[in-house]
Amino acid sequence: MAKQTDISTLGEFGLIDHLTKEFVVRRPSTIKGIGDDAAVLNYPKQQIVLTTDMMVEHIHFDLSYTPLKHLGYKAVISNLSDICAMNAIPKQITVSLAISNRFSIEALEELYSGIQLACTNYKVDLVGGDTTSSDKGLIISITAIGSAQKDMLVYRSGAQVGDIICVTGDLGSAYLGLQLLEREKQVFLSDPNMRPQLSQHDFVLMRQLKPEARLDVIDIFRESKLLPSSMIDISDGLASELFHICTRSGTGAYIEEDKLPIVQQAELLAFEFGLDPTVCALNGGEDYELLFTIAPTEIDKIKLIPTISILGAITEASQGINLHSKSGRIHPLKAQGWQHFSPAQ
Amino acid sequence: MAKQTDISTLGEFGLIDHLTKEFVVRRPSTIKGIGDDAAVLNYPKQQIVLTTDMMVEHIHFDLSYTPLKHLGYKAVISNLSDICAMNAIPKQITVSLAISNRFSIEALEELYSGIQLACTNYKVDLVGGDTTSSDKGLIISITAIGSAQKDMLVYRSGAQVGDIICVTGDLGSAYLGLQLLEREKQVFLSDPNMRPQLSQHDFVLMRQLKPEARLDVIDIFRESKLLPSSMIDISDGLASELFHICTRSGTGAYIEEDKLPIVQQAELLAFEFGLDPTVCALNGGEDYELLFTIAPTEIDKIKLIPTISILGAITEASQGINLHSKSGRIHPLKAQGWQHFSPAQ
Repeated sequence: MAKQTDISTLGEFGLIDHLTKEFVVRRPSTIKGIGDDAAVLNYPKQQIVLTTDMMVEHIHFDLSYTPLKHLGYKAVISNLSDICAMNAIPKQITVSLAISNRFSIEALEELYSGIQLACTNYKVDLVGGDTTSSDKGLIISITAIGSAQKDMLVYRSGAQVGDIICVTGDLGSAYLGLQLLEREKQVFLSDPNMRPQLSQHDFVLMRQLKPEARLDVIDIFRESKLLPSSMIDISDGLASELFHICTRSGTGAYIEEDKLPIVQQAELLAFEFGLDPTVCALNGGEDYELLFTIAPTEIDKIKLIPTISILGAITEASQGINLHSKSGRIHPLKAQGWQHFSPAQ
Repeated sequence: MAKQTDISTLGEFGLIDHLTKEFVVRRPSTIKGIGDDAAVLNYPKQQIVLTTDMMVEHIHFDLSYTPLKHLGYKAVISNLSDICAMNAIPKQITVSLAISNRFSIEALEELYSGIQLACTNYKVDLVGGDTTSSDKGLIISITAIGSAQKDMLVYRSGAQVGDIICVTGDLGSAYLGLQLLEREKQVFLSDPNMRPQLSQHDFVLMRQLKPEARLDVIDIFRESKLLPSSMIDISDGLASELFHICTRSGTGAYIEEDKLPIVQQAELLAFEFGLDPTVCALNGGEDYELLFTIAPTEIDKIKLIPTISILGAITEASQGINLHSKSGRIHPLKAQGWQHFSPAQ
């Protein structure tokens, strides 16, 4: 077993210094990072975009199958994805942790190596945070800051009747990856000598364990001078996010079932679990893809985006939010999403 | 017993809407608050100051004697205090909560009423956050944003040899308030019919339960054109904070024991507990007063601050960090502070 050093050997300030000493400053807007009462940032002529997210062990992640490095990476990504969903560029993050004494310094180093990898890949600076103890489990709270020119920001509320609904990447894979990890955990718990059968499922597992924020798409929007009319990232499932856009924009919408981007590996796995791939794509969540609308006149510009699907269109609010099924029927969509506070929990 | 409504009746989005619907926008820099993927802020020609803090039940607070409204207030104050310690003006906050199902909607309304009172008193906007479940206890993570002109920012690192060390307000009371609450809790646990004996201790109790950030002092600095050479807020105890200033500034320091601002009520209570009032003032923490240094030429300007104490002076690093005792002896100071990660926990 690898060396496990008790956190108490470093103390709070020593721990933060130890974990963050390898982080370099990349953004000119980072004037002062870790080491004072607050970070200092400079954004001349830009508007600032700010988002925050909390991840709780046993609620949002299960360390029995989530490597700490992946967890750190994903915790950053979910916040960067929110910044991208405003059509802004992420620049800085703060990371606060509450950790029980079952975590060693080496475990936290693993977690921070994932945070650092995300910072490197997305050119984001870690500029602050807080590290404290918890009496149970691990809690990660991240705040991300980004910036954009005022007229480049895209809100949920800008969709217009007739706009085309687009989504990046694929849907449902992250959810199916989670189902797979849960199944193999149960197999392992019932017979610890069983080895997990995961090798042929790399794609869906990586979609669950190491998602990416679609900053690449934001860059393409800039290059192609495409300004979506509304945008949101998919963390709670396509259906739930489409409801947010329609509610804020005062519109309805329809999407076509046969346009949902579901990769074959995910579809086969859904069948294996006795799940409907369409339901996984609509309600699975954690895809971190971008759902956005564009004016019909802009349709040629989206061809530059490597994986893009045109799902449907924005309608009058009175028409509701519907799914046009493969069999030609119209089903009202439900915003199921994640229910953190369901009575069953 | 008051009505207790289960959180699951509202769901995550309903809960956030319910808790935040009374919050109004006060700052012109708040372009977009709650309700999109991220908040949008505008700070033309200013630098942004950003800090974050996490409070964990059983580690940072005990709900058996901390009213939820006070807890919400204090959680905001501790972050605003960090912004003030940069000589900046707090403008916006985000609040993330993880809550176990033992909390009702009414309990969260109490917590948010304290958050709202702090926002009102300090003219700060709540612009975002996250609300999720925890499987144990309450965790509050707050991020505060402020701004200042570039040349108005004060860092920990600016102290110069010969500078005068000042502190606002009084020290040690918040710590003694905590000792009192802990004692009465033990009395109550051993005999639930006993009523707590707290009435004559209002001052120290309020210092513990409802601290304030010294934004009033920051305003006086602006009015009197006083720019401290270094500054920090006192959350972990005077000694610990003085070490931060000296370490970052590359200096030593001395402070005089008989200059420590200890109010009589706190002093008497310390004696009652068999504690040394000086130790309470040096290491108690949670005072949220400002410790700062000024050039000797600026000394007349601090007279405008209602409660201010001159504690000592900055020296060469080689002289160390010392306490000049009332009896005329020199004791090297130790930065005890809070030890979240002590092996005993």
